[in-house]
Amino acid sequence: MSNNFKKCHELKVMRDPVHGYINVEYQIIWDLINAPEFQRLRRIHQLGGTYQVYHGAEHSRFSHSVGVYELVRNIIEKVAGLKDVLSEFEVVALLCAGLLHDVGHGPFSHAFEAVTSVNHEEFTDRIILEDTHINKILRETSEDLPQLVADIIAHRAERKLLTQIISSQLDADRMDYLLRDSYFTGVSYGEFDLNRIIRTLKVVDDRIVVKESGIHAVEDYIMARYQMYWQVYLHPTSRSFEMILLALFKRMRDLTLEDRNAMDSISFIKPFVSKGDISLKAHYQLDESTCLSGFMTLTECDDPILRDLSSRLLNRDLFKYQDVLDNDQMESIVASVRNLGYDPEYYVIQDYTTQILYMPYEEGVDSGIWVQMKDGSLVELSKASSIVHGFATGNMKEDSKVFFPDKVRTEI
Amino acid sequence: MSNNFKKCHELKVMRDPVHGYINVEYQIIWDLINAPEFQRLRRIHQLGGTYQVYHGAEHSRFSHSVGVYELVRNIIEKVAGLKDVLSEFEVVALLCAGLLHDVGHGPFSHAFEAVTSVNHEEFTDRIILEDTHINKILRETSEDLPQLVADIIAHRAERKLLTQIISSQLDADRMDYLLRDSYFTGVSYGEFDLNRIIRTLKVVDDRIVVKESGIHAVEDYIMARYQMYWQVYLHPTSRSFEMILLALFKRMRDLTLEDRNAMDSISFIKPFVSKGDISLKAHYQLDESTCLSGFMTLTECDDPILRDLSSRLLNRDLFKYQDVLDNDQMESIVASVRNLGYDPEYYVIQDYTTQILYMPYEEGVDSGIWVQMKDGSLVELSKASSIVHGFATGNMKEDSKVFFPDKVRTEI
Amino acid sequence: MSNNFKKCHELKVMRDPVHGYINVEYQIIWDLINAPEFQRLRRIHQLGGTYQVYHGAEHSRFSHSVGVYELVRNIIEKVAGLKDVLSEFEVVALLCAGLLHDVGHGPFSHAFEAVTSVNHEEFTDRIILEDTHINKILRETSEDLPQLVADIIAHRAERKLLTQIISSQLDADRMDYLLRDSYFTGVSYGEFDLNRIIRTLKVVDDRIVVKESGIHAVEDYIMARYQMYWQVYLHPTSRSFEMILLALFKRMRDLTLEDRNAMDSISFIKPFVSKGDISLKAHYQLDESTCLSGFMTLTECDDPILRDLSSRLLNRDLFKYQDVLDNDQMESIVASVRNLGYDPEYYVIQDYTTQILYMPYEEGVDSGIWVQMKDGSLVELSKASSIVHGFATGNMKEDSKVFFPDKVRTEI
Amino acid sequence: MSNNFKKCHELKVMRDPVHGYINVEYQIIWDLINAPEFQRLRRIHQLGGTYQVYHGAEHSRFSHSVGVYELVRNIIEKVAGLKDVLSEFEVVALLCAGLLHDVGHGPFSHAFEAVTSVNHEEFTDRIILEDTHINKILRETSEDLPQLVADIIAHRAERKLLTQIISSQLDADRMDYLLRDSYFTGVSYGEFDLNRIIRTLKVVDDRIVVKESGIHAVEDYIMARYQMYWQVYLHPTSRSFEMILLALFKRMRDLTLEDRNAMDSISFIKPFVSKGDISLKAHYQLDESTCLSGFMTLTECDDPILRDLSSRLLNRDLFKYQDVLDNDQMESIVASVRNLGYDPEYYVIQDYTTQILYMPYEEGVDSGIWVQMKDGSLVELSKASSIVHGFATGNMKEDSKVFFPDKVRTEI
Repeated sequence: MSNNFKKCHELKVMRDPVHGYINVEYQIIWDLINAPEFQRLRRIHQLGGTYQVYHGAEHSRFSHSVGVYELVRNIIEKVAGLKDVLSEFEVVALLCAGLLHDVGHGPFSHAFEAVTSVNHEEFTDRIILEDTHINKILRETSEDLPQLVADIIAHRAERKLLTQIISSQLDADRMDYLLRDSYFTGVSYGEFDLNRIIRTLKVVDDRIVVKESGIHAVEDYIMARYQMYWQVYLHPTSRSFEMILLALFKRMRDLTLEDRNAMDSISFIKPFVSKGDISLKAHYQLDESTCLSGFMTLTECDDPILRDLSSRLLNRDLFKYQDVLDNDQMESIVASVRNLGYDPEYYVIQDYTTQILYMPYEEGVDSGIWVQMKDGSLVELSKASSIVHGFATGNMKEDSKVFFPDKVRTEI
Repeated sequence: MSNNFKKCHELKVMRDPVHGYINVEYQIIWDLINAPEFQRLRRIHQLGGTYQVYHGAEHSRFSHSVGVYELVRNIIEKVAGLKDVLSEFEVVALLCAGLLHDVGHGPFSHAFEAVTSVNHEEFTDRIILEDTHINKILRETSEDLPQLVADIIAHRAERKLLTQIISSQLDADRMDYLLRDSYFTGVSYGEFDLNRIIRTLKVVDDRIVVKESGIHAVEDYIMARYQMYWQVYLHPTSRSFEMILLALFKRMRDLTLEDRNAMDSISFIKPFVSKGDISLKAHYQLDESTCLSGFMTLTECDDPILRDLSSRLLNRDLFKYQDVLDNDQMESIVASVRNLGYDPEYYVIQDYTTQILYMPYEEGVDSGIWVQMKDGSLVELSKASSIVHGFATGNMKEDSKVFFPDKVRTEI
Repeated sequence: MSNNFKKCHELKVMRDPVHGYINVEYQIIWDLINAPEFQRLRRIHQLGGTYQVYHGAEHSRFSHSVGVYELVRNIIEKVAGLKDVLSEFEVVALLCAGLLHDVGHGPFSHAFEAVTSVNHEEFTDRIILEDTHINKILRETSEDLPQLVADIIAHRAERKLLTQIISSQLDADRMDYLLRDSYFTGVSYGEFDLNRIIRTLKVVDDRIVVKESGIHAVEDYIMARYQMYWQVYLHPTSRSFEMILLALFKRMRDLTLEDRNAMDSISFIKPFVSKGDISLKAHYQLDESTCLSGFMTLTECDDPILRDLSSRLLNRDLFKYQDVLDNDQMESIVASVRNLGYDPEYYVIQDYTTQILYMPYEEGVDSGIWVQMKDGSLVELSKASSIVHGFATGNMKEDSKVFFPDKVRTEI
Repeated sequence: MSNNFKKCHELKVMRDPVHGYINVEYQIIWDLINAPEFQRLRRIHQLGGTYQVYHGAEHSRFSHSVGVYELVRNIIEKVAGLKDVLSEFEVVALLCAGLLHDVGHGPFSHAFEAVTSVNHEEFTDRIILEDTHINKILRETSEDLPQLVADIIAHRAERKLLTQIISSQLDADRMDYLLRDSYFTGVSYGEFDLNRIIRTLKVVDDRIVVKESGIHAVEDYIMARYQMYWQVYLHPTSRSFEMILLALFKRMRDLTLEDRNAMDSISFIKPFVSKGDISLKAHYQLDESTCLSGFMTLTECDDPILRDLSSRLLNRDLFKYQDVLDNDQMESIVASVRNLGYDPEYYVIQDYTTQILYMPYEEGVDSGIWVQMKDGSLVELSKASSIVHGFATGNMKEDSKVFFPDKVRTEI
């Protein structure tokens, strides 16, 4: 089988501002990058509406995906003992899984999923396993490859080690996005010492663990996650953008329930606000370009709510927000929004958010980061680091906000 | 009049990965940033199709525009003697001009302009002077402001100093884009010592000149331009993307000439491939989202050439290229393309490019960078620096290529 | 008096890799930098023997001192409300205090102080107040200046705000050394967002506090301190170097007690291992050059212990170390060292170290960092941040080690 | 023989701010780093007196030497085809040569050599070949190793490829010092794209050449050299420091010619200003610490010229400088210096300097950088790059200055 893992004629490299270069050695990786379903990721922002706050955050899921691939490649190359315990088949499957782990994402991912029936994990699975360019490329290398790649991504692979590299509390996915989102937003808090972490990982009992000498670097990485969550990912202004998206999709769905042809003018979006299954072709065609273009069309439609909300998204006329206090206050917001002439159904939106900094090990769950102490024993990170212990046991930081317009909008 | 230049309630800052922060003090700047015509720049890439080669180059003209504004602000603040010779009216006009200098750009700018009748300078002028949100914001501050801002950008301002800051051989526009494009592509050659340059500028005879102690920093900046041109801006792969855009727009225009309703299904693009004037509304509505969405529609249209070319753009199935040698060779390429079943009219495209590294002073032209030597005399840069002299007198680097498909395409 | 604060003929700048430039506007600062007692700081490493582990850490107290000066200048310039509440006299005193706060340091500071009677705070005070070049420069500007500068540094100034800028839990001294030591060691963990912190400071009730929006940046700064302590400042290898220094100085002192002329051959060191007061001239003459040169002389002296220890320092033949366990183990180390022919008095050294990450406010003590919440109230940082609360209440990290040679040394 | 190339028990790493880490795999490298003759390099600044201008430039030849070693290691690892044409014996010799190429340097190297009879190349040769710790370590690995290492460094090796890696126009030595000196001074002009250069090197006909795709990166590297020369290495203030060193050593030599015991109080310096051969022990003992300590002693000696010059060096009271114009002007400087009471013999010093940016190939000389074009042909760089052609043929930049005191000195 090994002769199937064809190398490129010569090493292909892509300049990457975060990792320096993306190095592509296997032909299959090059072919996957050039598949239409993968190129589509160029048309989906990595951070949804975050670029409305941090204007540098205009990078796409394409950039992130090749970055995760490169990190998987590095981890396999450099983590002590890893290469020796993997077959070339597993190596190739891991590289593909790193590259493809986000291929099922839709536009403005999280908001979109919340209101439509779309689930990106499910689409990732289908794109890898059903009749697509990507599936064909994988199958041509090995009939078993699509299933293993899909299983690694979906946490179904028998060998937990494989999934751990792509998706765990210390994985290629998170390490790339923290560094990349930090680079593009310009928020330096997301930086940590990637090389140091990789140098201090090793394989013990078919599991990747951190050597004791790497604890400080891992503490710094967890601190970076904490900072990026509260300063970037959960920034109220980008949540405001997402809340308006939610309201807009809800409105489209409500109108479609009344009249199934209501959204005919925006044909790429229509399947996602209608009943019924969504084809892979419809999924391929819906990206942020076709989505925004649909919103541009809606700015001239008959429904005033669609007109207003779509125009807000295009022109960044976002909702204000404040902390949620009590029922009286909520009622007073609803009343004042209604007084401004807005329907509170679409114009008053509550959002609660929290983040668990570090999830210690629980029986039967794939959680926790394990540390090998100098004496050889394995200790869970929150027991090895008093800083992380503080993170794991401290009060969870929470945030609950309500979003609404605070003045009548003048038509564009 | 000065009481019109209202300050923001508190200093507004936007995190910027290149300059650290964008600082907004005047309310008018904040309002302009939030105008729909300016927010539209978020939907236009700064470097057209360059992200097809350098995947990090996904930044928009919005990012660049606020960056130029910030540099203008810095130059006014820090260049010795500048603040003293400018009225507050001129300061505000300069800040607005820095922010708005690219507001007329269309999607995939250069390719687009080459084939349609759109000229971004003309649209910038119209957006500032005609009936738009931006014009209204400018007028509310001062009736004379729109005209001065437009004149600075269009090189019509009487006081040459004003234009020099925005557009010359050493201006805020170029300094921002070299640094920004370098940052986002990850190509370090575009870096130079911005702070050093600004520290060594001064005003002499109502003109900005470089002190002799800044020559090295300026040499480095000119070298950075050279490197960015040949490695990024003129990269043949991104030119290949642009050549396909050219062919696609040419095809749309040709079909519209035969049948003026041919492009009805892509209503946002239609005005640009039809005869007749283009309204500011049509200009506002055409951005890269509506453009790409139009291409997605075209992948399912009746015309096989439109289908093929639009699909190539969406899925990065680019043309090959080679240096142009002689007529025989061109004829053989045309023949082989025709053999593959393609119409050479749209499938064989020649492109010639060159770059002048540094344009020394010529009588009557606003060119050249001037250096004030330690003895007080003013000397043109190519006379003060032997390195730049070499750039100015050396052979011009040229590149002439032909682009074409080298195999039959399988339908997506 | 204000006419005494003479400006330099033109702004003087020194290129600095950490802050970009050191900007010197006042003539007195330029004169102080060029005073012999200040130039001497070029001959003292900022981090003692740390360059034995992190070879990049070869920077001097001179670099750090001009860096603190620059940060003080920045804080005065940029912290909201600060400039308005300071007289020019206080501004100049603060700049001088930032520059001079470490001027009394001796070579290999901490080890040196531990064994000799030298205390760097005392010498800083004397150099500013007694008959020195520095005192003369200060007095020429204002008779009252030396006293105020010394008081600010020694926490004796009546106005606590002045000292807070130079020496507190969030001061120019720490902020410079974390960034600088991080830069020169190459350990990225010491980085934090200096500009963000300065932007979020403000003056409330004659005290500098952090705005709520700056909490994340301060959390990151405290994390940076934690990381630098355990990875750099308390690294066991650099402590090993210091332990040998301790032993060497102890030996010199013991020999001098027996024979007061014993150290005549190393005249610059002699006053520091003899009884009696130390003159400012002796202090000026002892730097790391004269110290190391003395060690070179000792490598050829009669006493085998001095010969061995000085040679170890010059040639980095350091002691091994291990965690201190119990008395039995200590006794076994002592016995084995004695077996190798070494005198345990100088060859077995214990060292205990700990670090308090953050010291919350206590009545009557100048501790704690205060945060102004959005509602205007002042809250102590460990109450405003659950992360810092964890730092303040968690187990204190401790480390206790014993250092000793583990094999017989072959003579150089 | 190969079993002599013992690996370390585990990979040893040293954190390096320029290259990230220095990786030591062979035990012999670790032993050489810990040899006294190599540790001595910690006590010699990489850039002599440059830290008097750029205070960050306090890094030592030790840092640079381990950096060159790391670059040699990288070049061997990554340059296409190189590893295959080298025996392990040659690999080890190259690594040692990179590490040891500067081991013979004395304090304040260039000034020192100019006035004493010391030549650092000669001492490097002797330290490797005569009776030293370093020679012993090399011989224990292989009897032939010292000779090959010395031959590579001294350009005597038969196989030119070996020397080319350590010392040519594009070698590990220059690449490290440009990057390192840029990092420590904070002058960003010295940066270039090291990884890109290494990626585009390959072995053709037992010579390292650049692929055509690497031309831009090499142009940038040559520009970096140009910038570092004129902004850092030849900065007139650091030349002023060196001129005073020259004068001081000249004075010591002149006094010793009159009385051979004149310099007895500064025993470590004495052999270098006396007639007669210099032993390796004397060379080992003279570093910048013993040198500066000697100067401290001289500040209290009887000779007023020695007192004055040594005090100037310690306290940075440097000579002024101006461009050399004509004989009349020189005479007027000499007269005015004499009027101030100074002996022009030691107080008026002329210095001429120039730099050849790029030396094209000449028959019989190891010069030039060779490029392999896409068609396989080898072309010399100045023919392949019009930028470099300009450098090679343009006017040579020259600088001629005279240094002298411009006022009477008040005794410290």
